[in-house]
Amino acid sequence: MILTKEIETFLEEDLRDDDVSCTLVPNKTVKAVIFTKQACLVSGLEIAAAILDYMNISYVQKKNPGDSAGKGDVLFELSGDSVSILRAERLVLNFLSRLSGIATNTHDYVSIVEKSVSDFNKQNKTSINAPKIAATRKTTPGIRKFEKKAVIDGGGDSHRNNLADLVMIKDNHIEIMGFENAFLEAKRKASFSKKIEMEAETKEQALSAARLGADIVMLDNMTPAEIKETVSLLVKNKLRDRILIEASGGIKKENLPEYAVAGVDIISLSAVTNDAKWIDISLDIRK
Amino acid sequence: MILTKEIETFLEEDLRDDDVSCTLVPNKTVKAVIFTKQACLVSGLEIAAAILDYMNISYVQKKNPGDSAGKGDVLFELSGDSVSILRAERLVLNFLSRLSGIATNTHDYVSIVEKSVSDFNKQNKTSINAPKIAATRKTTPGIRKFEKKAVIDGGGDSHRNNLADLVMIKDNHIEIMGFENAFLEAKRKASFSKKIEMEAETKEQALSAARLGADIVMLDNMTPAEIKETVSLLVKNKLRDRILIEASGGIKKENLPEYAVAGVDIISLSAVTNDAKWIDISLDIRK
Amino acid sequence: MILTKEIETFLEEDLRDDDVSCTLVPNKTVKAVIFTKQACLVSGLEIAAAILDYMNISYVQKKNPGDSAGKGDVLFELSGDSVSILRAERLVLNFLSRLSGIATNTHDYVSIVEKSVSDFNKQNKTSINAPKIAATRKTTPGIRKFEKKAVIDGGGDSHRNNLADLVMIKDNHIEIMGFENAFLEAKRKASFSKKIEMEAETKEQALSAARLGADIVMLDNMTPAEIKETVSLLVKNKLRDRILIEASGGIKKENLPEYAVAGVDIISLSAVTNDAKWIDISLDIRK
Amino acid sequence: MILTKEIETFLEEDLRDDDVSCTLVPNKTVKAVIFTKQACLVSGLEIAAAILDYMNISYVQKKNPGDSAGKGDVLFELSGDSVSILRAERLVLNFLSRLSGIATNTHDYVSIVEKSVSDFNKQNKTSINAPKIAATRKTTPGIRKFEKKAVIDGGGDSHRNNLADLVMIKDNHIEIMGFENAFLEAKRKASFSKKIEMEAETKEQALSAARLGADIVMLDNMTPAEIKETVSLLVKNKLRDRILIEASGGIKKENLPEYAVAGVDIISLSAVTNDAKWIDISLDIRK
Amino acid sequence: MILTKEIETFLEEDLRDDDVSCTLVPNKTVKAVIFTKQACLVSGLEIAAAILDYMNISYVQKKNPGDSAGKGDVLFELSGDSVSILRAERLVLNFLSRLSGIATNTHDYVSIVEKSVSDFNKQNKTSINAPKIAATRKTTPGIRKFEKKAVIDGGGDSHRNNLADLVMIKDNHIEIMGFENAFLEAKRKASFSKKIEMEAETKEQALSAARLGADIVMLDNMTPAEIKETVSLLVKNKLRDRILIEASGGIKKENLPEYAVAGVDIISLSAVTNDAKWIDISLDIRK
Amino acid sequence: MILTKEIETFLEEDLRDDDVSCTLVPNKTVKAVIFTKQACLVSGLEIAAAILDYMNISYVQKKNPGDSAGKGDVLFELSGDSVSILRAERLVLNFLSRLSGIATNTHDYVSIVEKSVSDFNKQNKTSINAPKIAATRKTTPGIRKFEKKAVIDGGGDSHRNNLADLVMIKDNHIEIMGFENAFLEAKRKASFSKKIEMEAETKEQALSAARLGADIVMLDNMTPAEIKETVSLLVKNKLRDRILIEASGGIKKENLPEYAVAGVDIISLSAVTNDAKWIDISLDIRK
Repeated sequence: MILTKEIETFLEEDLRDDDVSCTLVPNKTVKAVIFTKQACLVSGLEIAAAILDYMNISYVQKKNPGDSAGKGDVLFELSGDSVSILRAERLVLNFLSRLSGIATNTHDYVSIVEKSVSDFNKQNKTSINAPKIAATRKTTPGIRKFEKKAVIDGGGDSHRNNLADLVMIKDNHIEIMGFENAFLEAKRKASFSKKIEMEAETKEQALSAARLGADIVMLDNMTPAEIKETVSLLVKNKLRDRILIEASGGIKKENLPEYAVAGVDIISLSAVTNDAKWIDISLDIRK
Repeated sequence: MILTKEIETFLEEDLRDDDVSCTLVPNKTVKAVIFTKQACLVSGLEIAAAILDYMNISYVQKKNPGDSAGKGDVLFELSGDSVSILRAERLVLNFLSRLSGIATNTHDYVSIVEKSVSDFNKQNKTSINAPKIAATRKTTPGIRKFEKKAVIDGGGDSHRNNLADLVMIKDNHIEIMGFENAFLEAKRKASFSKKIEMEAETKEQALSAARLGADIVMLDNMTPAEIKETVSLLVKNKLRDRILIEASGGIKKENLPEYAVAGVDIISLSAVTNDAKWIDISLDIRK
Repeated sequence: MILTKEIETFLEEDLRDDDVSCTLVPNKTVKAVIFTKQACLVSGLEIAAAILDYMNISYVQKKNPGDSAGKGDVLFELSGDSVSILRAERLVLNFLSRLSGIATNTHDYVSIVEKSVSDFNKQNKTSINAPKIAATRKTTPGIRKFEKKAVIDGGGDSHRNNLADLVMIKDNHIEIMGFENAFLEAKRKASFSKKIEMEAETKEQALSAARLGADIVMLDNMTPAEIKETVSLLVKNKLRDRILIEASGGIKKENLPEYAVAGVDIISLSAVTNDAKWIDISLDIRK
Repeated sequence: MILTKEIETFLEEDLRDDDVSCTLVPNKTVKAVIFTKQACLVSGLEIAAAILDYMNISYVQKKNPGDSAGKGDVLFELSGDSVSILRAERLVLNFLSRLSGIATNTHDYVSIVEKSVSDFNKQNKTSINAPKIAATRKTTPGIRKFEKKAVIDGGGDSHRNNLADLVMIKDNHIEIMGFENAFLEAKRKASFSKKIEMEAETKEQALSAARLGADIVMLDNMTPAEIKETVSLLVKNKLRDRILIEASGGIKKENLPEYAVAGVDIISLSAVTNDAKWIDISLDIRK
Repeated sequence: MILTKEIETFLEEDLRDDDVSCTLVPNKTVKAVIFTKQACLVSGLEIAAAILDYMNISYVQKKNPGDSAGKGDVLFELSGDSVSILRAERLVLNFLSRLSGIATNTHDYVSIVEKSVSDFNKQNKTSINAPKIAATRKTTPGIRKFEKKAVIDGGGDSHRNNLADLVMIKDNHIEIMGFENAFLEAKRKASFSKKIEMEAETKEQALSAARLGADIVMLDNMTPAEIKETVSLLVKNKLRDRILIEASGGIKKENLPEYAVAGVDIISLSAVTNDAKWIDISLDIRK
Repeated sequence: MILTKEIETFLEEDLRDDDVSCTLVPNKTVKAVIFTKQACLVSGLEIAAAILDYMNISYVQKKNPGDSAGKGDVLFELSGDSVSILRAERLVLNFLSRLSGIATNTHDYVSIVEKSVSDFNKQNKTSINAPKIAATRKTTPGIRKFEKKAVIDGGGDSHRNNLADLVMIKDNHIEIMGFENAFLEAKRKASFSKKIEMEAETKEQALSAARLGADIVMLDNMTPAEIKETVSLLVKNKLRDRILIEASGGIKKENLPEYAVAGVDIISLSAVTNDAKWIDISLDIRK
């Protein structure tokens, strides 16, 4: 859900007091198109549409969130007052470019994982599931909810949206409170409605987290081999299906295929949001 | 200048109602450091410091905006309440990582330009000036002022901050109003306190802009050779020193050296903000 | 965490332009106490302290959140400018009175449950756990986070804070989508980081929810006898320890003892927030 | 008058970033009704309607503010997008339940007063007026204007809305400034457009307030007998019709009949807002 | 009371993203003075001080609200960071200049009234009171509370601050509802805590208003002679001391002396705020 | 561009919680007109229209910004709910009155300049251009963008809107940094997209500013004779057409004709905004 005040905050940044460039043009109705200049997965359509609505610009939306688009594909056909279109142009394009970049990037990671697992299953005649690709809280300040949605549009999982979403016990908490104590405090203080996730740096810690009753364990900076060992240890202790396993840290496109088949449920990486390139998307007035 | 309400908007995104993860830890004073995990130019120190101030965390700032930092270099030494430090951690790091990424990326472009010009001057025994590297309005919605400052910290020029900053007549304005008419309207309506910039797609248009009295002409999507021709034409018409020349469109690190010595005053590219990678910056609690 | 803008929003409601009543008094430092006029569990101390800080009033806080207080017990000793104390008085008292009312009321429910379970265990020589008392989303618009914290101060569980906190499939969702389909959609769309709770109106639905893999099942409007049957059915199907069971609907102080020993993990009721009486708390200036 | 920003503040509290529960359901138009599950006086219809408008939900409003409703009576018939209705549901119901509770509660007090006065007049063949039931500033922070309106819908008087509304000299002002001096300062500093009310703890103080020229005197914590004496004293001094008399403190439903006929113009009690029970009001989707 | 968010709203208007003019100067501590360049009554000191506090500028305040100042008199001695002082300069001066202009202008009107009444009393050996000079709601949008305070600093009365402050029945209400009916509706709907004022265009209406029980009657656009007749009529009917009489409309400095002795309690005129000239107040850096 | 939140901020100031005066009238559709009671240039029509839109009042706008209007001319014909019209009335009129006052006042200055130049040209058979009349940053806090637009509607130039708009080096900057150094710092730090203006107190400083490369020089507090000398000096040094010349300080309607023909490009004076009288504009309900 997008609020009027959010739209106004973003518009203000670009429009300020006297946007003389836009007001030069005569007030008349013109047509325009927003189109991609490179292949991508599109995202950001909801906020783009909300800005167009706010500016009283009519539009036909030609793509849905998560659709793929080829070079030259039209996302929106617009009709409206020329001043309003020029005022909305940059903000709409900035959102579409940034968010489609994230969706496209996420989709690349998801595709690698799915292909790796599919190849593995064929080779080994197994039917393991592909782990989910999840984002982190490393997002651009101020637009996290849009970036998280772009990850979902790209086929990924948003992971927690904020500190209140999930109880996550990380290295700095453990440094202050100790491993077991941190979990017990979480269990005591957190609502039953929230999951508890613990970061583990060794297979022993992972086992310990599962025994304590964590819902999720995050294996931090482990190699695929170490992860496999950890999974085996959990299986051996009959705790594997009690807990979700997340791998994080040091994972890149290059080594992703190995992580994809190491036995985890989730692979989280900040790269899905932070290394995303902007997609080149443009608006052309068609008189 | 950073306002309390800006800090609160960003904090709210991450903290929400009941950040149970942070409140697990006992309220006690701890020490911590914020340090880089890779070489970079640092930026975002003002907003980081403002967030720390807001959270009542004491700090010693070890670097200034635009300083270079090596792997492991400390940016801030912190001392404060453990809950407050955990609450501030992610937001501070997100700003530092994103903005240092932009500063570092900008600096790469600036360095290429400076080296190219210096080589050219040696070879040709000339003393032409290096053009400025400038950003565009293609920035992440909501944090433009911070991203523009990061460009400056990296040695670049912010270019206009918003639509009110400069009268810029671009393709869509010209499509609606015509080239000369657009300029005349700008001259008539805009305050004397603002510069007027015109986008030109041909050398003839560039000449025309200079004759009309534009302060800046932006050569759009020209090759280095076309730019040189355009500059010559302006020189021939004794208009070169009346106008600033900006090159934009199709410029990448690969062809930047050629553009650097083509005779322009400014090279603007959205890549300085949009292709920047996040710098890996971390916070460690030191009990 | 309490933000400056929250405090200002609440203060504005009472102070408006020209609070002539307060400004009558001369600006001089006075002492004052905030004290209870009836026995209670105190809550709201964080927001009270934040308002006092904002108004530059010095204070010694004599109680912690969740402490019990007798008639006449002092919560805060104040020292500050007379005008500021008169301006802060009503807002501070309104928060303390409303929130201490909720904490006290919650504690009454918690005590009944604990006593019932303890009696039951003695009688039956068992050691069943007391279910948690949980709040609902039926809270006063605008101050939910404070009311939820008051429930916690009273020994209860906040339950979800908002619609994003937990995936909860209720009657209206099921009416639109069907029972099983609603769960499958949730599983497909929701992040792994969130629990899924289903509302069940029959023991068969409860069994079905557990089989589908819900994290929590909410038994809606069941009698204690029906709940016991449902629990037995889950035990028989070896699903009892895979799922948390919440009872809700039609539960009052009178029948709470029966629900307390019916075998559920959580009892949620809007009465903890909505039937709470304000505690009489007062501020006296001591010249 | 209800502003967009007020609605958005309340909606945000419940919706947050990714209300996955609501977005599960398919976007399709559904019908629904909002109805009472117990007899009451309805209030909060303006804010409910404003929220429905904001969410683009069509409705037919079946009751007006202050109308009485029986069990099962429909307040609104809705037609709109299923996701929007689920998003609006809890906030609309929370307002209607809380505010109808206050209107209903106020009406109880008003009815007692009216019946007592009517009985008294019959018995004594007099025709004294029934005093007004008035609220206080003891309201839930953040929604005072809605709670005051609910008091009015229930037949009561809002009393002052904030510190700027009326000059009210209470115990703490008198403690600091002295009784007469406080009044004189008020007279000197306050605008002629505002009334001045003084709190009196004895009949002598009440007489003094009337002599000084106060518009209203508030008899604090007096018994009905003491009030009668005070009124007689004012009558004797020919000041009774120059001043409004308000009784406050220690008044409950039980002793209200006595206060009702003690000769005052206004009876104010925080109980009208603070002891109000929520009315059970529900929303059902009708596919 | 001045809130942080108010200060930030005003500062933002002038500072925007990159106030390059101010940041040119080196960050060092400088001294400065704010002084008047013409004789005046000073006002706006509270908001000026609040801005200085916000900007962390130390100051000694040399005048109090309503004090008279001669040419060259210092209002504030400042010491602070040079960048902060340059950023605060214009906003502080704009408030001081505008508000001192209003206070000075108000004082002119008050002085005329007082002198006229004093002369009249001497001549006639009477002791009539000088009517108050009151402002109206004709104030600059966004800063009414500051302009009303300036009127008070100049010796005037603020009159009502907003539509909720006083029930005022004006020509347009009467046009819609009729004279008597409008009053009766007000009496029925408005809280006892508010005064009711009626606009009268004839002496008959004034009498009618007094008979109905209005607290204040506003004689609209009457000549001094008409006013005297109206007052006489009220005296004759023994209603004069039951009601406050306000004169408004067509009053200027030239005819003010006649109005001053016509027998009214209040003279209201928008000129006190709207014809006020800015006082020339300056800030000088003293290195 | 006018945002919803701006309108709500202004409305709130006047409406507050319970505008009982407006709600007295029955909800029914009425007609009304907004008309001028004195000749003027109209301004503020955009914000007036935006408020009417927000309040759902239909209107026909009879004048455009900058049009002249005679006594009795209608600006808007309204049709809408009576309560809404009464609520909007004062705010709409305050904007129209204040802003039309500024436009009218600006136009007076512009007319004097144009007449003086025209007379001069006739007398001297020259064809010098009339300098622009420009505003300053001395505007009412909170509504600068509206006041600047009113100056433009009156035929003036807005000058810079805020500190970020133009680099302006004034006396206090020079006091801290020195004249030449201040310019060099500006050149080094400011974006190429901004003009640089320097304040000069002597003709030598003006020459120096032009030599350094300033875009604009502001001649502070010079007499017309001193200005002419300065212009001559610049002409002699062939720098006149490289720089815009602004005169400021000590300019009044009386001496404006002399300044108008002294050879400058811009005359700036705070009087255009600060000495403007409100135009008498009224709203009449026509039943």
